[in-house]
Amino acid sequence: MLTKEEITQYFQELQDDICRRLEAADGKGRFHEDAWQRPEGGGGRTRIIQGRHIAKGGVNFSAVHGPMPEKISRALGLEPGHFLAAGVSIVLHPANPMVPIIHMNVRYFEVQPAGRPEAGSTWWFGGGIDLTPHYIDTEDARLFHRELKKVCDAHSPDYYPRFKQWADDYFYLRHRKETRGVGGIFFDRLNGEAGFSKEERFAFVKDVGESFAPLYAHFLKKHREEPFGARELAWQGLRRGRYVEFNLVWDKGTKFGLDTGGRTESILMSLPPAAHWQYDHHPEKGSPEAQTLSLLQKGIDWVNYKE
Amino acid sequence: MLTKEEITQYFQELQDDICRRLEAADGKGRFHEDAWQRPEGGGGRTRIIQGRHIAKGGVNFSAVHGPMPEKISRALGLEPGHFLAAGVSIVLHPANPMVPIIHMNVRYFEVQPAGRPEAGSTWWFGGGIDLTPHYIDTEDARLFHRELKKVCDAHSPDYYPRFKQWADDYFYLRHRKETRGVGGIFFDRLNGEAGFSKEERFAFVKDVGESFAPLYAHFLKKHREEPFGARELAWQGLRRGRYVEFNLVWDKGTKFGLDTGGRTESILMSLPPAAHWQYDHHPEKGSPEAQTLSLLQKGIDWVNYKE
Repeated sequence: MLTKEEITQYFQELQDDICRRLEAADGKGRFHEDAWQRPEGGGGRTRIIQGRHIAKGGVNFSAVHGPMPEKISRALGLEPGHFLAAGVSIVLHPANPMVPIIHMNVRYFEVQPAGRPEAGSTWWFGGGIDLTPHYIDTEDARLFHRELKKVCDAHSPDYYPRFKQWADDYFYLRHRKETRGVGGIFFDRLNGEAGFSKEERFAFVKDVGESFAPLYAHFLKKHREEPFGARELAWQGLRRGRYVEFNLVWDKGTKFGLDTGGRTESILMSLPPAAHWQYDHHPEKGSPEAQTLSLLQKGIDWVNYKE
Repeated sequence: MLTKEEITQYFQELQDDICRRLEAADGKGRFHEDAWQRPEGGGGRTRIIQGRHIAKGGVNFSAVHGPMPEKISRALGLEPGHFLAAGVSIVLHPANPMVPIIHMNVRYFEVQPAGRPEAGSTWWFGGGIDLTPHYIDTEDARLFHRELKKVCDAHSPDYYPRFKQWADDYFYLRHRKETRGVGGIFFDRLNGEAGFSKEERFAFVKDVGESFAPLYAHFLKKHREEPFGARELAWQGLRRGRYVEFNLVWDKGTKFGLDTGGRTESILMSLPPAAHWQYDHHPEKGSPEAQTLSLLQKGIDWVNYKE
């Protein structure tokens, strides 16, 4: 039987593995680690890189536990109890505007109802991975979705279509009518329903976590030496502004973390080193920037995308 | 009897007056106007300046009306009806880091319950003005609060202490345990209670609105030629990052606007031209930056502040 210790241990190893691979892909930057403790139980290891190709990136592990704060039980619709929330969370902002921003998260949550040892614990896995190019390379987007579909299909034919749409709906800036990027997959509350065992859900989450580093290393290598100038940097600044808007206005994880007294610096590691805002900016018709904007929409079938 | 037309008309004139004064204070920039209409009723005039001393600023007037959207009536705890929301909203981001950021808002809201013409309308005024220095000049903070206290005291001895504390509580980044700046005044739902007439409330709001331009012109003139370098610009970038965090995470007006389908570009004119984030940044002990941080706290009695 899969224990929470095994899951937590795995997430730590995943963080280690991803950090090693990203340092290799960057070639210069090294992760700086801040280990932190939560007074009520648990803690984490926040790791930040400022490298040659990764301008600012965070690869965080945390596993917090203890009596579940009332805000959390109310938000999740759960009865009071002892909870554990563990996971790995990543955002990377590249230096070169031709390299995409990426985000990945895998997490596990469980709660044991207070004073009812006879009741089983409630548990679920969640997570997601999504790609935010400053300039959309449709070949990248197709490859990204095909790889994610492979990961999903190995566990259930149902996963990719559901989780792809979930990502389209989740990574969406409603006030801009734009998706954050080309999407990916998003899932939550994957529990023992629909005939899945805990082991099966965990196996899927592991595959998602392990797909991240090779995929991003590929995009990094492909684009990191591409030429760019003031124009591309200006556009990168504006797209980073949109990334900030999404994370601070709409991202439930960020709001939840800030609202429940999470570690601010670990949560906001997702913000770019710099972001720009320009009033009512519209890219020139027919430009690569306008082309990217036109593709920041829900419902694009990237797996079968043709120019 | 004061009508909504008079109030709306006044807000437009206030916008005109403030724009003229700010153009004069900047010496070079001119406001660019976008007039917009709301399909369901009303509209606004968004005015943006990118000047010599004001790097990016917005002075917005809007007056929207029509059947009250359900989201709004729920958020405000009001029965359905025909509403009007009118006001002027300003944020200025200066070029020189020694000049403070400023925000001002004055607004009027009323609603006439649907199908009950015999019921009087519900109405109130709201608003506020607060100062966000990148580097706190305690003389400026004292002057700012003394002027606001004068404006308040002319209408009620009760106003300044209440509205100063309200601003301390409102302009607060809970996740940072920092105030946005040196505060100012904030007030909402100033209606006919406590023996005030609508005319009296309006007279106060007018005085707040008219205090803005002379005060800011003073700070601009005092600091706009002060020397600065890479260090001050880097700090300005980080403080602008905090401004973004406040506006997108905590500001009720921004969230309300984005959530209820307000005009995004008008709402987000409050964001700076650029903002920076650096993981876990701490200014050097005893530095001017650390001194500023130490003063970003609630409850400082700026009117009587002594070094």
